[in-house]
Amino acid sequence: MSKVLVFGHKNPDTDAITSAISFAYLQNQLGFEVEAVALGEVGEETQYALDHFKVDAPRVIETAANETAKVMLVDHNEFQQSVADIADVEVLSVVDHHRISNFETANPLYYRAETVGCTNTIIAKLFKEKEVAIPKEIAGLMVSAIIADTLLFKSPTCTDEDIKIAKELAAIAEVDIDSYGLEMLKAGTDLSNKSAAELLDMDAKSFPMADKNVRIAQINVLDVDDVLSIQSELEQAMLDENHSNNYNLFVLVVTNILDSDSVILALGDPINAVEEAFNITLENNRALLKGVVSRKKQIVPQLTAALTK
Amino acid sequence: MSKVLVFGHKNPDTDAITSAISFAYLQNQLGFEVEAVALGEVGEETQYALDHFKVDAPRVIETAANETAKVMLVDHNEFQQSVADIADVEVLSVVDHHRISNFETANPLYYRAETVGCTNTIIAKLFKEKEVAIPKEIAGLMVSAIIADTLLFKSPTCTDEDIKIAKELAAIAEVDIDSYGLEMLKAGTDLSNKSAAELLDMDAKSFPMADKNVRIAQINVLDVDDVLSIQSELEQAMLDENHSNNYNLFVLVVTNILDSDSVILALGDPINAVEEAFNITLENNRALLKGVVSRKKQIVPQLTAALTK
Repeated sequence: MSKVLVFGHKNPDTDAITSAISFAYLQNQLGFEVEAVALGEVGEETQYALDHFKVDAPRVIETAANETAKVMLVDHNEFQQSVADIADVEVLSVVDHHRISNFETANPLYYRAETVGCTNTIIAKLFKEKEVAIPKEIAGLMVSAIIADTLLFKSPTCTDEDIKIAKELAAIAEVDIDSYGLEMLKAGTDLSNKSAAELLDMDAKSFPMADKNVRIAQINVLDVDDVLSIQSELEQAMLDENHSNNYNLFVLVVTNILDSDSVILALGDPINAVEEAFNITLENNRALLKGVVSRKKQIVPQLTAALTK
Repeated sequence: MSKVLVFGHKNPDTDAITSAISFAYLQNQLGFEVEAVALGEVGEETQYALDHFKVDAPRVIETAANETAKVMLVDHNEFQQSVADIADVEVLSVVDHHRISNFETANPLYYRAETVGCTNTIIAKLFKEKEVAIPKEIAGLMVSAIIADTLLFKSPTCTDEDIKIAKELAAIAEVDIDSYGLEMLKAGTDLSNKSAAELLDMDAKSFPMADKNVRIAQINVLDVDDVLSIQSELEQAMLDENHSNNYNLFVLVVTNILDSDSVILALGDPINAVEEAFNITLENNRALLKGVVSRKKQIVPQLTAALTK
């Protein structure tokens, strides 16, 4: 059997990259030949964590079937967020914390999803269940992912289990969660030298919702004006993306990681579904979403419901 | 919050019925108000186990949304095998050991699938992880399900984990696996007084495969002639079902539980996909499948592949 590949979603964030690394390490320790790869280049937040713990970024693949027949997915399941030829390989396992949609297999598989804030929280539990020790640098990457996904425990997706496991991992990794975490999050907010198109692509995912195709990008910032100062360029880039990728709606969520509010900027059709989903009125295509920081919990279900009516 | 309902698939077999009972018991012990219900009447094999351990059959429901907003699924995930109004309720969790198909949620959920022979094997692991003791009668129902799903450990779906956990459960339940198991399996092979239509409906599931709708029924017997002696009545009933339910193909698998072979009887279109899937030539609409006893592992993937070409 050729080597099994494990990877997180396209436009990988810190959890997508590091959960592939930590899950591959676990599988290797259990005796399986598994390699962590990525479906895109790492962002600056992730690079900060990789540099801190002296781990190389996984190599980037475009397709999987040319080198393996079997894959493992982490931090995603929806095929449109996965490798381009996902339908041509067998999915052996999934570890994830998102909704399940546009996913199917012909064979039984291992699937582990829990409603926690971070895939690496689940992987840490798997290490315990399999009684495999977590090395310092892997623990460091795993706690980085929990910090990133929960915005230092402030996201509504964060559970007691995330916090407990993050503290255990931080002890192994020998980092102070607050000071290390804030520096890592800040590294991810460095938007200098990024074009509007690049900003939209940093952390973007596609979602089929009823009969619509919705693109949702999220950008974490220390000051929303860092992004919204180029609103007109962003809007043009969003319209371009809608056109070239057949997105019905493009929703940009600009999240202030310090005060845990977001500004939403939305273009497309039906735009009234966006207003209905969040009980807002868009002015100049945008609105404030108080206390909203989580795409999976505070954006996707609401928009799915509004579009399903 | 109203009571959460937990149930296995339509045309429930022993695992579908008892995994709802065991999972509901676990949830109750963890402090959640959950009720086990069923999507059909229990069969004779299941009734034998319920009688032996003096447990009542769960009440049968036709729809869920009229009494709850939230459900938990066991031993299935595909919507066409679930309650009629599954799309109108939120799926909080799934514990299963089948392929994933025609399943989606708007929200993150708990999903636990493993490639073991029986859902109750996974549920037994959950009892351990949550450190909840299994009472004698629940352990008895759980080991009954493992015996049924693995045909006394002879199915290729059976894993070392199923055997190990079955032995632990049998010790709690104070039964001898071999003697109790054979009596229970024999109870399920009592086909007297069943019409052709009733035989086809005892353990039948529907599967979307590519653009086809496939119905696969399985009947366990001690002698295949017990069923095949009424082949012409069965064929008429299969054609009637194909017509009234828009099935493209109806596949009946008659499994001899003593020698672990099956006879397949198939009608519909494209019938050559059935021949291709199992590398057989149908004669008089039937063929012998040596060593085939598992629908999920030895029928569904092969037929899916043949229909997907």
